[in-house]
Amino acid sequence: MTTPTVLDALRDALGDAVSTTDAVLADARSDKSGHVSDAPPIAVVSARSIEDVQTVMRIATATGTPVVTRGAGTGLAGGALGGAGEIVLSTLEMQRVLEINEPDLLAVVEPGIINGAFNDLLLARGLWFAPDPASRAISTVGGNIATGAGGLLCAKYGVTRDAVLALKVVLADGRLISVGHRSVKGVTGLDLTSLMVGSEGVLGVIVEATVRIRRVTPGTVATIAGYFPSVVSAAEATAAVTASGVQPSIMELLDPVALVAVHRYLQLPTPTSGEAHVVIQTDGPNAEAEAAAILDVLHAGGGRAEMSTDHATGEHLLAVRRALHPSLEQFGTPLIEDVSVPRSQLAAMFTAIGEIERRYGISIPTVAHAGDGNLHPNFVFEGVEVPDLIWQAADDLFTTALRLGGTLTGEHGIGLLKKRWLGDELGEDQLALQHGIKRLFDPENLLNPGKMF
Amino acid sequence: MTTPTVLDALRDALGDAVSTTDAVLADARSDKSGHVSDAPPIAVVSARSIEDVQTVMRIATATGTPVVTRGAGTGLAGGALGGAGEIVLSTLEMQRVLEINEPDLLAVVEPGIINGAFNDLLLARGLWFAPDPASRAISTVGGNIATGAGGLLCAKYGVTRDAVLALKVVLADGRLISVGHRSVKGVTGLDLTSLMVGSEGVLGVIVEATVRIRRVTPGTVATIAGYFPSVVSAAEATAAVTASGVQPSIMELLDPVALVAVHRYLQLPTPTSGEAHVVIQTDGPNAEAEAAAILDVLHAGGGRAEMSTDHATGEHLLAVRRALHPSLEQFGTPLIEDVSVPRSQLAAMFTAIGEIERRYGISIPTVAHAGDGNLHPNFVFEGVEVPDLIWQAADDLFTTALRLGGTLTGEHGIGLLKKRWLGDELGEDQLALQHGIKRLFDPENLLNPGKMF
Repeated sequence: MTTPTVLDALRDALGDAVSTTDAVLADARSDKSGHVSDAPPIAVVSARSIEDVQTVMRIATATGTPVVTRGAGTGLAGGALGGAGEIVLSTLEMQRVLEINEPDLLAVVEPGIINGAFNDLLLARGLWFAPDPASRAISTVGGNIATGAGGLLCAKYGVTRDAVLALKVVLADGRLISVGHRSVKGVTGLDLTSLMVGSEGVLGVIVEATVRIRRVTPGTVATIAGYFPSVVSAAEATAAVTASGVQPSIMELLDPVALVAVHRYLQLPTPTSGEAHVVIQTDGPNAEAEAAAILDVLHAGGGRAEMSTDHATGEHLLAVRRALHPSLEQFGTPLIEDVSVPRSQLAAMFTAIGEIERRYGISIPTVAHAGDGNLHPNFVFEGVEVPDLIWQAADDLFTTALRLGGTLTGEHGIGLLKKRWLGDELGEDQLALQHGIKRLFDPENLLNPGKMF
Repeated sequence: MTTPTVLDALRDALGDAVSTTDAVLADARSDKSGHVSDAPPIAVVSARSIEDVQTVMRIATATGTPVVTRGAGTGLAGGALGGAGEIVLSTLEMQRVLEINEPDLLAVVEPGIINGAFNDLLLARGLWFAPDPASRAISTVGGNIATGAGGLLCAKYGVTRDAVLALKVVLADGRLISVGHRSVKGVTGLDLTSLMVGSEGVLGVIVEATVRIRRVTPGTVATIAGYFPSVVSAAEATAAVTASGVQPSIMELLDPVALVAVHRYLQLPTPTSGEAHVVIQTDGPNAEAEAAAILDVLHAGGGRAEMSTDHATGEHLLAVRRALHPSLEQFGTPLIEDVSVPRSQLAAMFTAIGEIERRYGISIPTVAHAGDGNLHPNFVFEGVEVPDLIWQAADDLFTTALRLGGTLTGEHGIGLLKKRWLGDELGEDQLALQHGIKRLFDPENLLNPGKMF
């Protein structure tokens, strides 16, 4: 159907929820991956309710118009880019917290609530929501669920899927289903709740989430900052921490290139050549003893390290890690990759990254969630289009991660940017089943077409 | 195709892995639900390898013969009963532990390994596998995964789905797929690993599992046994424990009817009329302080309770809980139900069970995993067929659990016994999607037909 007809139908039904201003349409063409769609979408509809989402999907089905569901647009894989002929369905105005249930340790939220804002509400009650992507200050809970965004705390506090109890989902034709339950346990039928987590908008629109929340961990937080003569020795030391049986809440590793970039950005003295940085936190009643045990492991691994249980000092020690992404933008457009490997393979992955740097003559500043084996190698380039050379290097990176027993994406999703490698990881037979599930949920291919698959 | 032809094909391909003795066929007709299929299956094939499973599925597809995958036959929902015209595919001989990887805290196992035997191997290395169904001494890890069996520790240590990283699955036509990954994180494509967990043999045959393992929790174990003047006061006290912020590893509740049954079975003095029993464990470095805090909550809730950190005394205090199921068998055939509700609704659920007992003039001895809101109300009857009156009472029970925000089954699965209520929980639209997924994976309806759906 023609664009004017679709727009008329949207405006008739939803009035000023429908925007077509240049600025709004331009914004919906890109996300934090830096990737930009070929052309602006038809419109951005800011849904205010489940009914609004149902209305959009009914119009989309009636007119055969594709719909891209979008939260805050902080994705790193191009999963929520709106392009020519598409409706962008924004859930950003659906941001109510419908329930905080302390006895049952659950909350019910609309998808557009910002993770950080939700956590602020919870913290005031001594509660928190564990999924903790680095984007938490700007990303939505709905987007976190739709991508399976993880963060720094997964090894100790679980992945995002573990935190989702139930979802309301609007299907392609506008029908509303409820999957999951409010109880801790439940195995009735096939687990469609988990199927929706990380489904990147291709199966339905998440319009409400019942999530598991936690009580704030009692006790101290201890923070350790360490420096190692090489990235491989740092990676081996973090693997040794995991192997020692102590479970840090956070364990992050910056490779030498990343460390130099941050030091320049923060106007700190240039670090010793080749030096890698580790920052680790422990929490809970035994945090200090655990941190002391970790210090021993780091020293035995050839690192120098210091520890503090003072909050302000801890934040200061974390500052280097936190400054990584802004520091990369001084050099160009970063393509933030997201491979994940078994923890014992972290050093092998860093060694491979070093080989890829030499092979392609590029530098790949890398940060790792070393506690869970998730690495973010960053490719930095000029302009907005990822150069072929970078894609070739990324291809090497993905192949290595798969060979080490890992995965293409630990927490960012496939989106547009990684779909050409999807079959390499899943294999042909599994990929065919995944296509089949997509067709079952979305026979007209209206939900985020061209993303993931 | 005729039974002799199918049998010939199986015997030609698999030799003495194929059994048709009366005893073996009779055994495959029932499980621990007490339910028995109408007639014996064609044969029981004891697969020794993935290739054997593929061979069975190829023959099944070629001959249009249904296949029931079966582990140790300890299911409680009739999910693995073999009947007329069906092949029972036993995974019980596939019980190798292929890898125990301590640095990555994962293990790779064949599906037929007994949960308890697997844990014995792990414990010798200071490790353990958290899914802990009451049947762990006799049930297989593959069966635990296929039903999503939970157990006593879920509130603290997660549900079975959280412990499964990757699976190898043989599809209906004999093809083998691998889903998931060995890394902590991974969001590549749709989450078919979670879709397989709890799928009760209707989507494929789980032939290998990569599971998350844990280090043995350091510190003491403290055990508390408490008695309350009524089941509602006991349920309220356990909810108060959860609400207090202390996280027990185990928190079990026996209602008065169950307590009387156990006391009679163990030849203990008859308990005070109407008294309910609670047994709670804490573990970890703060176990004793946590147990002391719990004792305060129980006393404030009108209970009398004692605590011990001595292992033998702790086991003694748990003995009453452990004796429940054998104690019920003195009275007849137990139908063990499995509803799960939000923890705050536990007292309401017990009140409703009391009303159902009065309405139908029956007694329903009930044990609850009070820490996670999962109740096992037991209906005890004469003979093997569940009487209509019992089904009517169960219907009331299910309806109540759903109304309270819960689910039909917390950990046993739908199987045969609960499928008539599946649509009540899922709703028509979700049920249609689940049927669609079943058809996608198994277009000829050969995998455990008539179970779950």
